[in-house]
Amino acid sequence: MSGEGRRPPGSAHPRPDMTPVDHAELALLLEVASTPKPGNVDRRRDHDDLLFEHFLAGAVGARAGLELATGDGNDGPPALGDAFERSVRGMSQQEGDNTQFGCLLLLVPLVRAAATDRLSPTGVADVVETTTVDDAVGFYRAFEHVDVAVDDPPAEADALDVRRGADAIPALRERDLTLADVMELSADGDDNAREWTTGFERTFAAADAVLDDAGPVTDRLARAFLDLLAERPDTLVAVEHGDDTARAVSRRADAVRGDLDAAEDLAEAFRAEGINPGTTADLTAAAAFVALERGVPV
Amino acid sequence: MSGEGRRPPGSAHPRPDMTPVDHAELALLLEVASTPKPGNVDRRRDHDDLLFEHFLAGAVGARAGLELATGDGNDGPPALGDAFERSVRGMSQQEGDNTQFGCLLLLVPLVRAAATDRLSPTGVADVVETTTVDDAVGFYRAFEHVDVAVDDPPAEADALDVRRGADAIPALRERDLTLADVMELSADGDDNAREWTTGFERTFAAADAVLDDAGPVTDRLARAFLDLLAERPDTLVAVEHGDDTARAVSRRADAVRGDLDAAEDLAEAFRAEGINPGTTADLTAAAAFVALERGVPV
Repeated sequence: MSGEGRRPPGSAHPRPDMTPVDHAELALLLEVASTPKPGNVDRRRDHDDLLFEHFLAGAVGARAGLELATGDGNDGPPALGDAFERSVRGMSQQEGDNTQFGCLLLLVPLVRAAATDRLSPTGVADVVETTTVDDAVGFYRAFEHVDVAVDDPPAEADALDVRRGADAIPALRERDLTLADVMELSADGDDNAREWTTGFERTFAAADAVLDDAGPVTDRLARAFLDLLAERPDTLVAVEHGDDTARAVSRRADAVRGDLDAAEDLAEAFRAEGINPGTTADLTAAAAFVALERGVPV
Repeated sequence: MSGEGRRPPGSAHPRPDMTPVDHAELALLLEVASTPKPGNVDRRRDHDDLLFEHFLAGAVGARAGLELATGDGNDGPPALGDAFERSVRGMSQQEGDNTQFGCLLLLVPLVRAAATDRLSPTGVADVVETTTVDDAVGFYRAFEHVDVAVDDPPAEADALDVRRGADAIPALRERDLTLADVMELSADGDDNAREWTTGFERTFAAADAVLDDAGPVTDRLARAFLDLLAERPDTLVAVEHGDDTARAVSRRADAVRGDLDAAEDLAEAFRAEGINPGTTADLTAAAAFVALERGVPV
């Protein structure tokens, strides 16, 4: 139980015994419980082959990898890429296939930052900066465990297509690309990768909004989801339906911002249209983690 | 990460990397997600001051105690009572107070049995039999962390009233009562304690029914809940509303057995009447754990 007792005695934190790993797991659970999150599985809605309980099992299964991400191993900190791969492998032990790949891509460096007392934009930027080629290898290996929706890479980057999984490793090594480099290359079309290149700007901003909000944490997270979606087109929607649809989806989210009742209708509409703003759900989980670490009540 | 890799390589288990602790935590999550479970918080219903997310946080917080329950500590197995107390302390780090006390009372010995390869009625009876007075002390200390609804003890057992918490410890020591003895004394009016005295008879029978059933695991657990409630009056309902009401509640559950749509109406009725068959929910969580260990699909 690494991280146990990490908080100083007498800490005013409402969950003094909960470690960064506990909070990461709870963030995954609160994200899927928060409702409505239009277009995503939530407490009130399943997709056809992707059920609420798949996310519960994914969160529990991911835990062993999140433990590795703390860097509290006995023989020096385990590689961040290995932690990520282990978390995805554990997550995939349920019948819904990919439930939380993007969430984990955000949570793994955030957990490392929190467990080493630097959960801030500059602290997590440090974590990103020190990633290695081996971390990039772990990232590519993670694609062997689940199907992830991604865009086609540009022709010159075909050898680095993540869908190649472990087959892309020789190209990674030849070009000497760290995980930070890989994220930089993907940042344009993938807002999870973009977080890696900006000190997790949107994650921290959304966490602040959640902390400043009031009411049950799941309502706060549902409002944060709408704000994030209104702010920028969801990159998973763009991959699956094109940029125009992604922009239209953000405008529709903007129209119901702050109004969870109106968002219920939007949730039904997105479900009927097969619109799944999954990247925005990933960012919501990351924001939940930061908010939990900073003491949001549950 | 105790228990990691416990399953033999090549195991046909659908979740080869999930440990008994993972399954215990997932059992807590699946229990609260299963719906309808008339009178209890579930995926579709909250109580006034007890919300779905309190159960999610309770499940995560309980984990450190469940790890202790595996008995994989470096200095010999930790006392089962200490594991229970730690799990309740962790569970209580949310604003809903008592979410899963009864579930944990059942899960702790089941996790010990599973982690030592004897998850069977005789195996868990062994675990119960070897409990000590120190285990009973841990059990009483757990009552310091949350409010638990219990019946008044008989006059001659007043010194052992669990609501005394740690103040009852001298009486425990003086009478040399093990945790198994304490459960024996409580078995008459508390069906969780009764499981401890019967080799977890109803838990294993319900797990078999869940394994033999079909469909999503949360529907199977909702049906198992109705069966358990129909079978025997819920002892928490008896404490809170008397034996007659508890018997009537079971008859009403019997009338909708196997019919989750009809059970939706019963869920609304029980909520309006303030009827909370919490012991039956505890047994459902315990059955979920056994079913998960035995490979029920998720």
